[in-house]
Amino acid sequence: MGKLIVQKYGGSSVANVERIKNVAQRISSYHKKGNSLVVVVSAMGDTTDELIELAHKINPEPSEREHDMLVSTGEQISVALLAMALHAIDCEAISFTGMQVGIITDANHTKARILKINTERIKKALKEGKIVIVAGFQGVTVDQDITTLGRGGSDLTAVALATALKADECEIYTDVDGIYTTDPRIEPRARKIKMITFEEMLEMASLGAQVMQARSIEVAMKYNVPLHVRSSFNNSPGTMIVKEAPRMEEALITGITLNKNEAKITVCDVPDKPGIAAQIFKELAEAGINVDMIVQNVSRTRKTDISFTVASTNLTKALKVSKKIAESIQAGEVIEDQDIARVAIVGVGMKSYPGVAAKMFECLAKHKINIEMISTSDISISCIIKKKYAEEAVRALHAAFGLG
Amino acid sequence: MGKLIVQKYGGSSVANVERIKNVAQRISSYHKKGNSLVVVVSAMGDTTDELIELAHKINPEPSEREHDMLVSTGEQISVALLAMALHAIDCEAISFTGMQVGIITDANHTKARILKINTERIKKALKEGKIVIVAGFQGVTVDQDITTLGRGGSDLTAVALATALKADECEIYTDVDGIYTTDPRIEPRARKIKMITFEEMLEMASLGAQVMQARSIEVAMKYNVPLHVRSSFNNSPGTMIVKEAPRMEEALITGITLNKNEAKITVCDVPDKPGIAAQIFKELAEAGINVDMIVQNVSRTRKTDISFTVASTNLTKALKVSKKIAESIQAGEVIEDQDIARVAIVGVGMKSYPGVAAKMFECLAKHKINIEMISTSDISISCIIKKKYAEEAVRALHAAFGLG
Repeated sequence: MGKLIVQKYGGSSVANVERIKNVAQRISSYHKKGNSLVVVVSAMGDTTDELIELAHKINPEPSEREHDMLVSTGEQISVALLAMALHAIDCEAISFTGMQVGIITDANHTKARILKINTERIKKALKEGKIVIVAGFQGVTVDQDITTLGRGGSDLTAVALATALKADECEIYTDVDGIYTTDPRIEPRARKIKMITFEEMLEMASLGAQVMQARSIEVAMKYNVPLHVRSSFNNSPGTMIVKEAPRMEEALITGITLNKNEAKITVCDVPDKPGIAAQIFKELAEAGINVDMIVQNVSRTRKTDISFTVASTNLTKALKVSKKIAESIQAGEVIEDQDIARVAIVGVGMKSYPGVAAKMFECLAKHKINIEMISTSDISISCIIKKKYAEEAVRALHAAFGLG
Repeated sequence: MGKLIVQKYGGSSVANVERIKNVAQRISSYHKKGNSLVVVVSAMGDTTDELIELAHKINPEPSEREHDMLVSTGEQISVALLAMALHAIDCEAISFTGMQVGIITDANHTKARILKINTERIKKALKEGKIVIVAGFQGVTVDQDITTLGRGGSDLTAVALATALKADECEIYTDVDGIYTTDPRIEPRARKIKMITFEEMLEMASLGAQVMQARSIEVAMKYNVPLHVRSSFNNSPGTMIVKEAPRMEEALITGITLNKNEAKITVCDVPDKPGIAAQIFKELAEAGINVDMIVQNVSRTRKTDISFTVASTNLTKALKVSKKIAESIQAGEVIEDQDIARVAIVGVGMKSYPGVAAKMFECLAKHKINIEMISTSDISISCIIKKKYAEEAVRALHAAFGLG
């Protein structure tokens, strides 16, 4: 008895004619085993970026509706070509746009949220024995305006379809062969993780692991759709992302992330009275700036320093807003620091083992790496350090926690 | 009081960023005069050909449904970019795909016929003061499958929209500035025709004039939508295609066409009995071969020669079929001749003036150009001559009929 499998192929997996043919072969082999297949495809290689570049030559601030109209063509091209590639090897296949497949979203262009999926057409095609190819990343409003789902949108399409269709499996094919304990370009001894929980994956994604966007993982977690992240270039099993991972080993932590794209802002001599922190971060939020880590030193005087990190791309804007706020609340100087990196350890294991934080700090101290900020969550500990120590810190922690 | 104008811009008019911006300027100037505008756009430059080439690398015989899914992206890109270009110069504009604008077609992929157009959404957008940008060349079946309308399909979209919306004007923008008495590359003294009837234009299109496809002209004629064919690169008035053109001059003919892409096939010694010709052309039609001119010599014996022309691209196939037929009807040899050109004079004027044919033959005779086949319609006379005389014949006829 065959399974219903949703597969998602990212842009690098369909970047050219040869790769599209390879993907078709892979799909065909699954189909021949008697499985029903729904395949979600991203735009070929850099197509989306090229279209956006073209748009910006015409209008530096394109309307979001027209942006979606434009970039959604990228996935439409991929699905048609993949269907043709399957036909060429005698597989029955049919391609659909987000609109045709009934992915209804809100009208929040460029980052629309899926409201519902009408699965009738997919089910009909599957019943006819066809492989269903769906354009990822896109949907349509009730008024038939084309929308896109934002970064990592194709993953979201796959997860949402797997949920709506009650699929047996959801495979995310990408150009890496799974989730690693840390970035193998930094630590060659990084190991592929066989199984990781949604919670850990979510934490890793938000701390800088780039394989999947947090949003798709959230949806998969919410509907408990196990994901299999793997490479489209080989047949090795990848990483399973699941609700609860059996912990064979006594692993304290699961992975280490690094983010070098943040900058630190410190507002000095903030009057230490209730409501001041709220005021600062409310105004930053209203300016559309996402604040990441926040650290406030315990004040011994009536003044305190508040430090926080923002994405480097938002630094200029964040500084401007911060200086305005500092003035209005009669705080002191506003200091920026771009020379920072955030290294974090992630793992549900740390919940039950005390001393993980201490071990992390000790390890960094042993390497004479000074910690500038610390922030912890239930299953992660982040440290801000100088950028130049970033890679060394990752390698040191990887060894200290026995991940190699 | 503004007019409702449908404008169509061909692929060369939107081939790059600069041209798209120019087109936006032109549209804006019409809009500022208080007109309501519906703009139909083709795919940028060679986009469609490039997509087809890509498809053929994946599957030499792509499914027609997937072909339409693929190539329809070309127009979708154009409309989004043109809307962005209009926004950049502060014009309110909104783009639509064929599906969104309710162009319902049959399911005859790659050459679908328009069944109806739901104009509600266009009317609503026009009422809001928006310029409506519509993807040409495409429609959608009642099952929401994307279709394309075949060659010249964007013209057809424009004409059909002008009809459905009861537009005041329908302008076809292209890279030439109108219809000429003959191809100016052959006869530099060729003159732009100010006004031409649908009937004449239809005849010229089917005889080789390449500016517009016959199908769009047929539809415009059927619904009596006057067309204005003009250039998007300048502001000169182009050619009006209308039901009845006032004949100021005593012009016998309106234009001269030349087609060098035909080949002649002669089936010799065909038994001269009823039904034989029907048999030959029925079998050719069943093989999907379009036959153009047919000439049968009066037979003095019991045998006759039948000659006909086909598009050069169909010659091999047509020869194969013809030889099979010749054998089965016990005819003689089958001869091919690729060294031919078809020169034709077109004009409703010839209806009321006898002697036009004689004048044409005389002119060719004076230039010692031998006529191999003759075929006439109500408003045209075609002669097959040797290819090497083609341009000379065009120039001679252009002068003889006083078109310069």
